Amino acid sequence: MKFGISFFPTVGPADKDAYRHYAECLALVELAEELGYDHVKAVEHYFFEYGGYSPDPVTFLAAAAARTSRIRLVTGAVLPAFTHPIKLAAKLAMLDNISGGRLDAGFGRAFLPDEFAWFEVPIDESRSRFDEGVEACRRLWAEEDVEWRGTYHRFGPVTLLPRPFRQPHPPILVAAALTPSSCEAAGRNGYGLMLVPAINPREKVQDMLGLYRKAWADAGHEPGADVVHLSYNAYLAEDADEAFAGGDACSLRMNHAMRDAVAAWGRTRSDNYVGYENIVKKIAQHDFAGALADNRLLVGTPEQVTGQLRAIRDWFGDVTISLQVITGNPSYEDAVRTVRLFGEQVAPHFAD
Amino acid sequence: MKFGISFFPTVGPADKDAYRHYAECLALVELAEELGYDHVKAVEHYFFEYGGYSPDPVTFLAAAAARTSRIRLVTGAVLPAFTHPIKLAAKLAMLDNISGGRLDAGFGRAFLPDEFAWFEVPIDESRSRFDEGVEACRRLWAEEDVEWRGTYHRFGPVTLLPRPFRQPHPPILVAAALTPSSCEAAGRNGYGLMLVPAINPREKVQDMLGLYRKAWADAGHEPGADVVHLSYNAYLAEDADEAFAGGDACSLRMNHAMRDAVAAWGRTRSDNYVGYENIVKKIAQHDFAGALADNRLLVGTPEQVTGQLRAIRDWFGDVTISLQVITGNPSYEDAVRTVRLFGEQVAPHFAD
Ligand SMILES: [Ca+2]
Ligand SMILES: [Ca+2]
Ligand SMILES: [Ca+2]
Ligand SMILES: [Ca+2]
Ligand SMILES: [Ca+2]
Ligand SMILES: [Ca+2]
Repeated sequence: MKFGISFFPTVGPADKDAYRHYAECLALVELAEELGYDHVKAVEHYFFEYGGYSPDPVTFLAAAAARTSRIRLVTGAVLPAFTHPIKLAAKLAMLDNISGGRLDAGFGRAFLPDEFAWFEVPIDESRSRFDEGVEACRRLWAEEDVEWRGTYHRFGPVTLLPRPFRQPHPPILVAAALTPSSCEAAGRNGYGLMLVPAINPREKVQDMLGLYRKAWADAGHEPGADVVHLSYNAYLAEDADEAFAGGDACSLRMNHAMRDAVAAWGRTRSDNYVGYENIVKKIAQHDFAGALADNRLLVGTPEQVTGQLRAIRDWFGDVTISLQVITGNPSYEDAVRTVRLFGEQVAPHFAD
Repeated sequence: MKFGISFFPTVGPADKDAYRHYAECLALVELAEELGYDHVKAVEHYFFEYGGYSPDPVTFLAAAAARTSRIRLVTGAVLPAFTHPIKLAAKLAMLDNISGGRLDAGFGRAFLPDEFAWFEVPIDESRSRFDEGVEACRRLWAEEDVEWRGTYHRFGPVTLLPRPFRQPHPPILVAAALTPSSCEAAGRNGYGLMLVPAINPREKVQDMLGLYRKAWADAGHEPGADVVHLSYNAYLAEDADEAFAGGDACSLRMNHAMRDAVAAWGRTRSDNYVGYENIVKKIAQHDFAGALADNRLLVGTPEQVTGQLRAIRDWFGDVTISLQVITGNPSYEDAVRTVRLFGEQVAPHFAD
């Protein structure tokens, strides 16, 4: 198994000024590299405390690239619905080169109705804009003299500069939240898959992974080369009670941040997002003990979290895990402790 | 006077792979900081060798920020016509925080017809899109609960995250090429002004600066706080003949790159770009010796370039100079030499 750190901030100015936020995150990136973590990852969200300190993951990861030499840099995810594919392909190609080929380009559809409204993008175009955006980036990376005649963008023939470091293109990952057909499409296209197990029952995650892996195999992609990233809130301490108290507080804080961000699903329906109206209800039923018992978050002592990961490996196979160590606003010292305890005492049990 | 390095690449894959390009540029950034330069700057251009290795200056400057601690970071310029103002304001605010307040946010209208075509933005909307983009960014930085009801974008009320490091907003600069009214608007708004003296007769530059400074004063902005950035191709060597040969070669190479990029002006007319159709003709009349005699580029020994700068100071006043040290594809060693000779033997004569 591989492990990384995912930066999903839930702070606003009242909690932490942004200068300190980025300084702490970059220090955590350096620590993660030192401890042998596989990757760092950053989200794209706007205005809400739910991810709002990370509106442009590429900007953050470019700084992270300049501070490191080995760790991989994952956009988790960039949102093609809100950025022109020329711009998106170009800045990701810059990051790929600045980092010497350490980019894994993760794309997402976005799922907050307010974000679509702010960018004046109809939410019912989510899937078609995503498909067009990812494919336009892929072609701009892999091909020369690209002529793009899509539904939303028309350009070319053009040859993207800079050419990406990795040929024909950086590894591509796609995010899926609740939608099984997204998993199938990822497998068929030979892309990696990013999932958030916390928001689905275990059986549903297993079904989605099954669809992904079957589509991967059916399309004839290299056996065993499929890539699955799972993100988990993580809070570790040497003392179990302290870990549970801290993990519970972070979980509750994340829940509150998410509540604001998804509130618009209470009055939004879209055939591009079947079932999302239930998110509001699910979040209202926040249950830390239940989530912990179902291994939907990684909280406890290093021994306890090692046990959780053994169960997760049994359920989901040899996946890549991204630890959300700042989500829910632990202190910086607590986040450092989580990264350190996990890297030193948990990860070695799962060395590939 | 203050001095900086402006990264205006004119390379393509046949000249230099992008990994090496960014590695060299970041090494030059570190050298510039070490030698006491005021700033580094990066352009935004697409697809052409003329700037095409720099499609997203924020990505490059974020890496530069992470490698430095003092030097200022200038977008020279970002192009609001091609990026949604929410996205643009947000990534610039990230860079401002990541760098601890070292961002100077320079905005440009863009001027290559092909770039407008690729992004499907009518070139006749250039000025109105620029005005709306800059003002939307300024308000997103300076205000909370911003309601934007523009011609091209409508959103809000929203409060941008992250808040910029500098309050109420990072210093704003605007680029002007040939258009006097742009200079006047910059002065009236209290913004800095970025000019490229090489493309205008000295008298016209003086007129543009006069308009800018008069508008600044008339609007009641702080006397003497106006900011003027002038960019010059620069090539220095200890030996004069070597400097002229190298400077000539770079100038010619830049000229060729620019020729491709502006070719569309041969068949484009826009009332947003009066007189731009003459660019094609001007470039065809490339004359290194004439440009050197008019101090339109900085080429020579440290003593000779010191003399050029004394003339430039006499003509234009106490301006900030950005040296285009990689433009025209000098070898990396030659660019290092230019940065070093200028920083060690020229800049000290002009210490503020
Ligand atoms: Ca708060
Ligand atoms: Ca070719
Ligand atoms: Ca205890
Ligand atoms: Ca070439
Ligand atoms: Ca407030
Ligand atoms: Ca000689």
